[in-house]
Amino acid sequence: MALIKKGVTGMKDILPEEMIIRDYLINIIKKTYGSFGFTSIETPAMEHIENLLSKQGGDNEKLIFKVLKRGEKLKLDNVKDENDLVDAGLRYDLTLPLARYYSNNQASLPNPFKALQIGNVYRADRPQKGRFRQFTQCDIDILGEASNLAEIELILATTKALSEIAKGKKFTVRINDRRILLAMARYAGYSEDNISNVFIILDKMDKIGLDGVRKELTELDGEEKCEKYLNLFDGLSNDTKALTSLKDSLAGFIEEGVLEGLSEIMNTVLDVKENDFSLEFDPTLVRGMGYYTGTIFEVSMEGFSGSVAGGGRYDKMIGKFTGSDTPACGFSIGFERIITILMDSEFKIPDESKKIAFLYEKNIDSNVLTSILKEAATLREAGNIVLVSKMNKNKKFQKEGLEKQGYIEFKEFYREALK
Amino acid sequence: MALIKKGVTGMKDILPEEMIIRDYLINIIKKTYGSFGFTSIETPAMEHIENLLSKQGGDNEKLIFKVLKRGEKLKLDNVKDENDLVDAGLRYDLTLPLARYYSNNQASLPNPFKALQIGNVYRADRPQKGRFRQFTQCDIDILGEASNLAEIELILATTKALSEIAKGKKFTVRINDRRILLAMARYAGYSEDNISNVFIILDKMDKIGLDGVRKELTELDGEEKCEKYLNLFDGLSNDTKALTSLKDSLAGFIEEGVLEGLSEIMNTVLDVKENDFSLEFDPTLVRGMGYYTGTIFEVSMEGFSGSVAGGGRYDKMIGKFTGSDTPACGFSIGFERIITILMDSEFKIPDESKKIAFLYEKNIDSNVLTSILKEAATLREAGNIVLVSKMNKNKKFQKEGLEKQGYIEFKEFYREALK
Repeated sequence: MALIKKGVTGMKDILPEEMIIRDYLINIIKKTYGSFGFTSIETPAMEHIENLLSKQGGDNEKLIFKVLKRGEKLKLDNVKDENDLVDAGLRYDLTLPLARYYSNNQASLPNPFKALQIGNVYRADRPQKGRFRQFTQCDIDILGEASNLAEIELILATTKALSEIAKGKKFTVRINDRRILLAMARYAGYSEDNISNVFIILDKMDKIGLDGVRKELTELDGEEKCEKYLNLFDGLSNDTKALTSLKDSLAGFIEEGVLEGLSEIMNTVLDVKENDFSLEFDPTLVRGMGYYTGTIFEVSMEGFSGSVAGGGRYDKMIGKFTGSDTPACGFSIGFERIITILMDSEFKIPDESKKIAFLYEKNIDSNVLTSILKEAATLREAGNIVLVSKMNKNKKFQKEGLEKQGYIEFKEFYREALK
Repeated sequence: MALIKKGVTGMKDILPEEMIIRDYLINIIKKTYGSFGFTSIETPAMEHIENLLSKQGGDNEKLIFKVLKRGEKLKLDNVKDENDLVDAGLRYDLTLPLARYYSNNQASLPNPFKALQIGNVYRADRPQKGRFRQFTQCDIDILGEASNLAEIELILATTKALSEIAKGKKFTVRINDRRILLAMARYAGYSEDNISNVFIILDKMDKIGLDGVRKELTELDGEEKCEKYLNLFDGLSNDTKALTSLKDSLAGFIEEGVLEGLSEIMNTVLDVKENDFSLEFDPTLVRGMGYYTGTIFEVSMEGFSGSVAGGGRYDKMIGKFTGSDTPACGFSIGFERIITILMDSEFKIPDESKKIAFLYEKNIDSNVLTSILKEAATLREAGNIVLVSKMNKNKKFQKEGLEKQGYIEFKEFYREALK
């Protein structure tokens, strides 16, 4: 029986044209983040199933690829549950593995630790256009830094990388804080039990609009709380003035310094930033992951729906491994999203090397081949990309194909002198 | 219960010091192979279990991490066999996935196709020093090229990359052909059934020496065949003269042109090569993988046991997917082996950027922080790596740690002017 040509469901073979863009993106990211002192690390694609199912991953935990136990003959007679069969799974993100890594290697790492991770993650999502079951994430995280410096540097570094990648495209960073979200809901009188439902509704603002949110909040817990809640948002600006104006209403509902801290982050970023982007306070920004404990941020790009980057502070995750909390804050670039944007806009990489193709006729004398290969070596030494290839029967078609790959110069070699 | 800090058995957390060397290696490899016209591709880490268990992988098929089926509730009552539970597994090498990739995407790929793959593979081997269950392979392959050009370019490109990586280290490329191995065994009178056992014994030459090989071959099928076989090796040189001298003995046992083809490969490589390495014909070179059909090669480095690269021609694998054979030849660099060699020799990367650390005292005024961040941005723009960090209580220890990370310049900022 013939072997199966197609890859497994929902996983993609990456073709050369896309790989060129991916490699280009990775180089820019590594260089930009490297200049801020972030250092690359790598964790295994597999993690203990206990860690993966520890409720850090929200809905992603339903999408885990589980790996069959190894090392002993599996006893299949007595299996009651999937989890009797597995002890590991493929990671669904890079944040949980980072927290484990930091806990495991803390003694060998600088403090604070600035990590850059670019790696594949796995989610058994329903396959659809642009969504794959193996995809690349690209995260920077600062661990062990409790002050605003973490947020400020993450925003400066990520916006710089995005500016380098998508030159000339306008983007907006929206920022909020989980503690402000909580305080606003408490101010309106929502019970602790209901708060996560309030956030789920608020998060739909983009899709269902203010009227839709009002309708669902009223259904959730009556008109009075809904109006008190929505009135808080009314007339808020998207700059730091909004934070000042919230100060009175939220007094008693919010920790000292949270609003001022967010103002400081915004003011410092606006002062220092070299790239052109907008920075907005967005009290409706929720972000899904349950592990966030403070600031949250998201970046959108003009002309493209959804976000191209996102992140926030998660000060409680590392403590789940070590028993003592460590401040942590991260920003993730939507690597696959940006690849799709660049591929769709027929983005061309600025080529540094000249691409030259040597085509030689079949059955050429081996001395001639030797001299062709020597000439190719010399041109490579001078910084060119040189492809040596036999001439195909349909030379025109072959050259057109090579031109598509970026070859701009051709040299042809024939059996007897030059035909 | 606390989460588990250690990674899964046999899989490694890669620390920043090692990642710097890995990234450096990957850059050299991509640049060198790129200059020969190899293009990067990527295949998913997961493959259909049917493909993985198709006998292309030899003993590696015993080491597969199998992935539990997704998408339907598993029926655990009626499970008779592991394979009722799984439909995919993690790849154990990059060659089988490449053959699938080529079969799946042939219409979109150039012909011949020169592929570069750098990716992780998975084998549930017994963990031991330097051997991990997730590790990186680095392969180049030329698909669709039947002529010697494939072998010649693979050897030239791989030796160039190795010279760039391990500057000043001497290495030796040994080369043989499966068809010569077969012909020599047939000449000695070994039956087809016994030939793979003969190869297994011959392959132990390094470990058990000529006397050991003689003893085992005699045990296998008597003294007469053993002596006739070993006499063939006696007095063979390690250059192309050996191939000429084998011509008479092997007549009738070997296809026309095999010995001449290997001579041509060796002569052309020796003529064209720019880097300093030895190229030797080695009639005892076997290589384990069953899928090789022609030339095989291996590279060893002075002062290190085992090989640092290896490969060969496998013209029959793609046909298992497509139904029609496609010539294929590949060379794999022992990425992890080289990392170990470089780490053990305290290899230092030639640093291009200056690394500067700004340390500021806790609770510094936010205006001062802004000016520090601006200064850092300016220095980054000029090509430096600038780390901005709070001063730790033990500043001396902090600076020593930063020096180990390569920071050579420090600037300190205090709360009130300069203390």
